[in-house]
Amino acid sequence: MTVLVVGSVALDSVETPFGRADNVLGGSGTFFSTSASHFGPVQLVGVVGSDYPVEKLDPIKARGVDMAGLEQIEGTSFRWRGRYRHDLNSAETLETHLGVFSNFRPRIPEQFRRAPYVFLANIDPRLQLDVLQQVERPKLVACDTMNFWIESRRPELLELLKHVDLVTLNDGEARQLTEHSNLVKAARWIMERGPQLVIIKKGEHGAYMFRDREIFFAPAYPLEDVFDPTGAGDSFAGGFMGCLARAGDFSEESLRRAVVYGSAMGSFAVEKFSVERLLEIDRDDVRRRVGEFRRLVAFAEELPA
Amino acid sequence: MTVLVVGSVALDSVETPFGRADNVLGGSGTFFSTSASHFGPVQLVGVVGSDYPVEKLDPIKARGVDMAGLEQIEGTSFRWRGRYRHDLNSAETLETHLGVFSNFRPRIPEQFRRAPYVFLANIDPRLQLDVLQQVERPKLVACDTMNFWIESRRPELLELLKHVDLVTLNDGEARQLTEHSNLVKAARWIMERGPQLVIIKKGEHGAYMFRDREIFFAPAYPLEDVFDPTGAGDSFAGGFMGCLARAGDFSEESLRRAVVYGSAMGSFAVEKFSVERLLEIDRDDVRRRVGEFRRLVAFAEELPA
Repeated sequence: MTVLVVGSVALDSVETPFGRADNVLGGSGTFFSTSASHFGPVQLVGVVGSDYPVEKLDPIKARGVDMAGLEQIEGTSFRWRGRYRHDLNSAETLETHLGVFSNFRPRIPEQFRRAPYVFLANIDPRLQLDVLQQVERPKLVACDTMNFWIESRRPELLELLKHVDLVTLNDGEARQLTEHSNLVKAARWIMERGPQLVIIKKGEHGAYMFRDREIFFAPAYPLEDVFDPTGAGDSFAGGFMGCLARAGDFSEESLRRAVVYGSAMGSFAVEKFSVERLLEIDRDDVRRRVGEFRRLVAFAEELPA
Repeated sequence: MTVLVVGSVALDSVETPFGRADNVLGGSGTFFSTSASHFGPVQLVGVVGSDYPVEKLDPIKARGVDMAGLEQIEGTSFRWRGRYRHDLNSAETLETHLGVFSNFRPRIPEQFRRAPYVFLANIDPRLQLDVLQQVERPKLVACDTMNFWIESRRPELLELLKHVDLVTLNDGEARQLTEHSNLVKAARWIMERGPQLVIIKKGEHGAYMFRDREIFFAPAYPLEDVFDPTGAGDSFAGGFMGCLARAGDFSEESLRRAVVYGSAMGSFAVEKFSVERLLEIDRDDVRRRVGEFRRLVAFAEELPA
């Protein structure tokens, strides 16, 4: 089953304690679609400027990502420049040039409108709502957001919540949105406002999924060398949605498995710059990593008599 | 199999967003032994002053904690007063009176010296080393420590590491001790200096156990109401050591199970002030909570074809 994603396609320049990369493929739509392509067909909607090296997207297209919805228009592309310090936990943004992204009005191509799984990556909630007007009865709509929209577009974000099935956001954003410091309470707050499913990403501390009274937790894979954290959350979301679309149902089992595959994809994303590692790995690498996740949390329950 | 613990027995005064408690039972030895008593016999070594309401320890004694090693001497007891803000993640220490604890010289009673499992709770590493002179060939020696000793007694702490099998410490302390921000590297650094096992506690983010190349992770139980985090780490350690002593071996299975039972005990400790909740619960409550831990991380691995 196809996954449609609407998000940013950018050029990132990143400094980490291990090196730097300039003008490499970045953006939520790019990470998401590369990650999701490991599980099935993906349709990408976004915008780039006339300066974008579109040929660099070929390896992603070759993986089955349909870029018929990626517009290239006159102007400069979205560029982000950031730096990670020693602890790699938070990016310091050095520069953001929105370029053509500042006037992005997503247009969903006719042939994309019946995608059963829709992911609204982190863009203006007004645009996320606008996309929902253009798609036809998806089976599942998920959205991401960020602190900037929680602050500046709160009413629109609350309106959006009424129309999505699943929200992914990080722990800081969940606390900011709900004003609950306890994440169980934060998740309930969100679920009372529309979504049946909430995924709270805690970066190196793993991710929670909430549905009704069910809580599932997947740790982050304890990598000895995190190279570049950029895109981990979007790669998680791509793996989650791709895996879920592949299952084709919303059973607790399918949802939990999707969280683990999402975590596995996030753990690969941070091993190299940009989408490099996501483009190298194959099905066996992903399976092996998921097996390592199982090993990481496996335990025997019964106490000796 | 018996667990011997050497640690503080204190009076805590705690303020949380949910209320306050004054002069209640506290200290690492108190939390540890109450928690461990759910799994088997415990021997406690510590010191209190002439002002200590020793009769309040009766419920802990009644659970099978032998207090023959708890000295009461002339002077004031160790008192700690602290406050937790809204996020409950870190205690703000308002007052510490060491009292008789400042001259604590642990004396292990003759009948305690052959305890097979020994836990050196967070006290001066010189005293921890001194205890090791007094015990006879324990099967497993574990120690805890804290930022204060890492700073002020680094050489003695490094000496101690050569003589213990297991270290428990929190993530901040692991980073401070090893100067590695990556916890996998921090654990390896510690293992290279003596201990075969390292447990890194991350509070609300769970706990890692490292041995050789094996890594195990147990999440913290996602409680909707954390009432008072005081003693969570010592209750974890008590549950871990008690469960491990009950198993009587150091197989990977026994170690992993002990981490989960430790996490369960930590999750109970924070539900009420002091050791209140640890004294209320029974074997069935513990089993049920461990079942909830299993449910929390359970997933089906195989991707649909």
